[in-house]
Amino acid sequence: MKYSKLFGKTNKTAPEDEKIISNKLLYQAGFIRESTAGRYFFLPLGQIVQRKIMQVIKEEMDQTGSQEMVSPILHPLTLWQETNRDKSAGFELMKIEDRRGSEFALGGTAEEMFIDVVRKFQISYRDLPFNIYQFSTKFRDELRARGGLLRVREFIMKDAYSFHVDEEDFKKEYQLMSDTYTKIFKRLGLKTYIVESDNGYIGGDYCHEFVVESSVGESRFLMTEDGSYSAHEDVAIFTKEEMNLDEQLQSLKKVEAKRNNDMEAGANFHKKPLWQQIKDVMFVDEKNRFILAIIRGDYDVNEMKLKHIIKAEELRHASDEEIREIIHSEPGFISPVGIKQIISKDCELIIVADDSIRKIHNAYGGANEKYFDYLNINIDRDYQPDIESDIAMTQSGYSVENNKKLVEKRGIEVGNIFQLGYYYSNKMKDATFVDKNGKSQPYYMGCYGIGIGRTMAAVVEIHHDDKGIIWPEEIAPYKIHLLTLGKDLEVLKQAEMVYDKLCKENIEVLFDDRRDIMAGEKFADADLLGIPYRIVVSTKTLKLGGVEIKQRNSQEQKIIKMDQLIKLFN
Amino acid sequence: MKYSKLFGKTNKTAPEDEKIISNKLLYQAGFIRESTAGRYFFLPLGQIVQRKIMQVIKEEMDQTGSQEMVSPILHPLTLWQETNRDKSAGFELMKIEDRRGSEFALGGTAEEMFIDVVRKFQISYRDLPFNIYQFSTKFRDELRARGGLLRVREFIMKDAYSFHVDEEDFKKEYQLMSDTYTKIFKRLGLKTYIVESDNGYIGGDYCHEFVVESSVGESRFLMTEDGSYSAHEDVAIFTKEEMNLDEQLQSLKKVEAKRNNDMEAGANFHKKPLWQQIKDVMFVDEKNRFILAIIRGDYDVNEMKLKHIIKAEELRHASDEEIREIIHSEPGFISPVGIKQIISKDCELIIVADDSIRKIHNAYGGANEKYFDYLNINIDRDYQPDIESDIAMTQSGYSVENNKKLVEKRGIEVGNIFQLGYYYSNKMKDATFVDKNGKSQPYYMGCYGIGIGRTMAAVVEIHHDDKGIIWPEEIAPYKIHLLTLGKDLEVLKQAEMVYDKLCKENIEVLFDDRRDIMAGEKFADADLLGIPYRIVVSTKTLKLGGVEIKQRNSQEQKIIKMDQLIKLFN
Repeated sequence: MKYSKLFGKTNKTAPEDEKIISNKLLYQAGFIRESTAGRYFFLPLGQIVQRKIMQVIKEEMDQTGSQEMVSPILHPLTLWQETNRDKSAGFELMKIEDRRGSEFALGGTAEEMFIDVVRKFQISYRDLPFNIYQFSTKFRDELRARGGLLRVREFIMKDAYSFHVDEEDFKKEYQLMSDTYTKIFKRLGLKTYIVESDNGYIGGDYCHEFVVESSVGESRFLMTEDGSYSAHEDVAIFTKEEMNLDEQLQSLKKVEAKRNNDMEAGANFHKKPLWQQIKDVMFVDEKNRFILAIIRGDYDVNEMKLKHIIKAEELRHASDEEIREIIHSEPGFISPVGIKQIISKDCELIIVADDSIRKIHNAYGGANEKYFDYLNINIDRDYQPDIESDIAMTQSGYSVENNKKLVEKRGIEVGNIFQLGYYYSNKMKDATFVDKNGKSQPYYMGCYGIGIGRTMAAVVEIHHDDKGIIWPEEIAPYKIHLLTLGKDLEVLKQAEMVYDKLCKENIEVLFDDRRDIMAGEKFADADLLGIPYRIVVSTKTLKLGGVEIKQRNSQEQKIIKMDQLIKLFN
Repeated sequence: MKYSKLFGKTNKTAPEDEKIISNKLLYQAGFIRESTAGRYFFLPLGQIVQRKIMQVIKEEMDQTGSQEMVSPILHPLTLWQETNRDKSAGFELMKIEDRRGSEFALGGTAEEMFIDVVRKFQISYRDLPFNIYQFSTKFRDELRARGGLLRVREFIMKDAYSFHVDEEDFKKEYQLMSDTYTKIFKRLGLKTYIVESDNGYIGGDYCHEFVVESSVGESRFLMTEDGSYSAHEDVAIFTKEEMNLDEQLQSLKKVEAKRNNDMEAGANFHKKPLWQQIKDVMFVDEKNRFILAIIRGDYDVNEMKLKHIIKAEELRHASDEEIREIIHSEPGFISPVGIKQIISKDCELIIVADDSIRKIHNAYGGANEKYFDYLNINIDRDYQPDIESDIAMTQSGYSVENNKKLVEKRGIEVGNIFQLGYYYSNKMKDATFVDKNGKSQPYYMGCYGIGIGRTMAAVVEIHHDDKGIIWPEEIAPYKIHLLTLGKDLEVLKQAEMVYDKLCKENIEVLFDDRRDIMAGEKFADADLLGIPYRIVVSTKTLKLGGVEIKQRNSQEQKIIKMDQLIKLFN
């Protein structure tokens, strides 16, 4: 490719306020352009990289025996209704009606579609297992889309779905996919952490994210130093110690407490440790249920865990007015003690206690009345939670199994694998296979996704310097960035010959053939574009009987002869 | 690939009432499945073929210097508003709103999108010309979707857009694309006719369809035997002879005519030739304008030509009531003579005369009154059309240039190329480049499309027999269909070895490894799938020291040795 003919040239400046380095570099180097927020054009250079990423994924998926196919982008809405996901994923699911009145979803994932195509066949145990996948455009109706390719509304995803006779068979595939993903990302130049995570609206019992560590990533996860445990903050657990269970239960006491509303104020006022205080957080869910979450005073409530336990789609904090007028309590002074007796008649209240609460005796906290606190609050005796579970947010420094300390990391989620089990096959009609005894059985499933654009952005986040991108060879848009110095006609002629020779040998080369551009600008563009090898033809190199070669990620330059060059890349 | 593991097995029966052979075979052979009407899954075998077709197209496009990129699927509706296509293409354009209220079109083509990305760059004459293309899913909100992949609502299209400093430069690209398309289709096993056609809602002045001759095609076109002229019925012209211009003009005469409403009745009643009668057809367009089309009695009106001339989006025949109550004429007795004097006051009527009318003297026809006709109607003297033009439908047997006879053909439109000129760059802001003098100029454009699924269906329409598909080698899902006969363990062992060897040599092979299937069924499946080479391993072939090879499109079978086999495919 000649640079003069390339559509999508470099740009000296990035969009204003662009903080994400991958977006800045991919923009400046002419790989992508935004259409509307969260929807991107992949320009010719970007599309080459996108294709190479997909090729690596395809090779590794095919290697495992997975089979590529493709489903329509518009999913009949009836399918999403069959699994009830039209509602649960409703907030980010885009819907469209055609002029005959048929409704469709613009899928974010395609579980229903793949089951729908599989059930068009009479599958028997002999046909199982299989793993079918596609590369296809996915849609997310995100309210916020920032960060270039890291958070978008439309993107190409490799999504795979596997079908099994039972869990045991599935587990082999889950491991195989996990290993395959590690291999794929390694080929793409990415070291990934495999992080236990929340399944979101996909369903199923467990799943893992593949995360590239990066400060701009949206995934916050916690791991032990030895990597034996790593989990997304949404699901990460930690060891909650027994605090003062040897202490005798004291009798409940209501005391005046002219203090501020915050936790520290309570601890200071009563001169007791923060952990002994009960933190009371009042939420409201989408069905207008009130949820009182209580937890040890120095812990925080993990809303994702809480949502799962009470099976809520959405949670918000109750307002001061709601706390006063519906709960008849007082902001900053809420207490589980006696609260069910004072709430409005038609108000549904669920008390959810973190299991840390049971490891404390004689806690203190509000008394549902302004400027009054209870001392010596004890679970069971003074109040009964409706649910007891882990609803705590794990933090850096907490410990997990065998007293190993957790460290907080941030990262970019580039892929994920999900156990689906019977989640879909139990909900969808005829999602079955015929077993050895001729009986219909639901199949056991898994699904496996990789976001292509986000992977590309992650590569740039990891592989760049202050001058530009440094593409790993496997997915670089070209192997060689050829350029000339000066306006000497002989140099230009020789460079054209080098270019023709490389093309003839099918060695991928971008030739900066611009004549009116200074050497400095050409070098800067080469660094920005990040092609692995820079080849310079100049009067000097011709005198030395060859071309100058330099790797993007090294300072070393040397002269090599033309036939050596060809050999190097063949 | 082992057949036992393949997702998407063969089926002995096709969907009921399936008349399109490509749909029947692609269904039975397990290449495609319908999701909802007009939206298809490409199963693993179908996806391999789809990929190979795209690969051929990509290779040939890249060869011309065209550059692949990709645009979002959701187009901001504002772009379509900029060119007014949100209305003109409205009837098949799908629209969607996101939850922030932004509107998008699910594009059928992407002219606006590509201009929108190009105008994000400051293009100068030095950057031109370039041709950028994508493979992307396109949507058409068709009311009817039948015929398998031939008429769908969602499909992958290769769409290319070229940008030029002027018409002269564009014309070179148009020719290059035309030649490239011929080459592409030839590699895919398709002989295409290049047919002048209507530009539909794309705009521009001229365009050509690439048509594969087939009785199931929706494109009706006319061509001379020598191929010097070929045009879609929407635009095909023919020579209209002067009939009786040497005849003296006779005076207009109104006569009683108790006849039926049809043209033959008129000719019989007056005992005059059909061609001398005026055919009057009354239409109504989407703006409620009435259009009276008049033409020689033995010709038919071409509604597409008529629509273009009067710049209407839609036409329908006026009802009998409208003709009586608004036009104050009589169905079957309409006449251009005096019609503007009798119509309702607020009625807009446009009289459009085919140019054949001027080649007749003393025509006869209705008199805007039941059972009355005029004789000796003559243009200019008795009535003045608002527009005179070619609005005739060309038929088989008519002649064109140098008296060459036209033959009617039907075919499948697999690709098309469009001159766009300044159609878009004049409508869209900043669709300009900087010329040599530093002045902003609109660029001159063309666009070029190929429907992938339809091309695949066309290949099957052309390449099949009564047993199944016969894939051209270039796009066959596999090169070799390997199968075993009998249950002899040695045969199975040898076949596995053959399979492993072929895989190791990267020779694409589908191995029918089923043990409980009779030879007849395996052969039938092989014929149905249509893979070019069938290799049989059996007790007999082992005795003869090799394998049996047979081409799908030949009856000849022969035994070859394993190393010969490898050589044959390397």
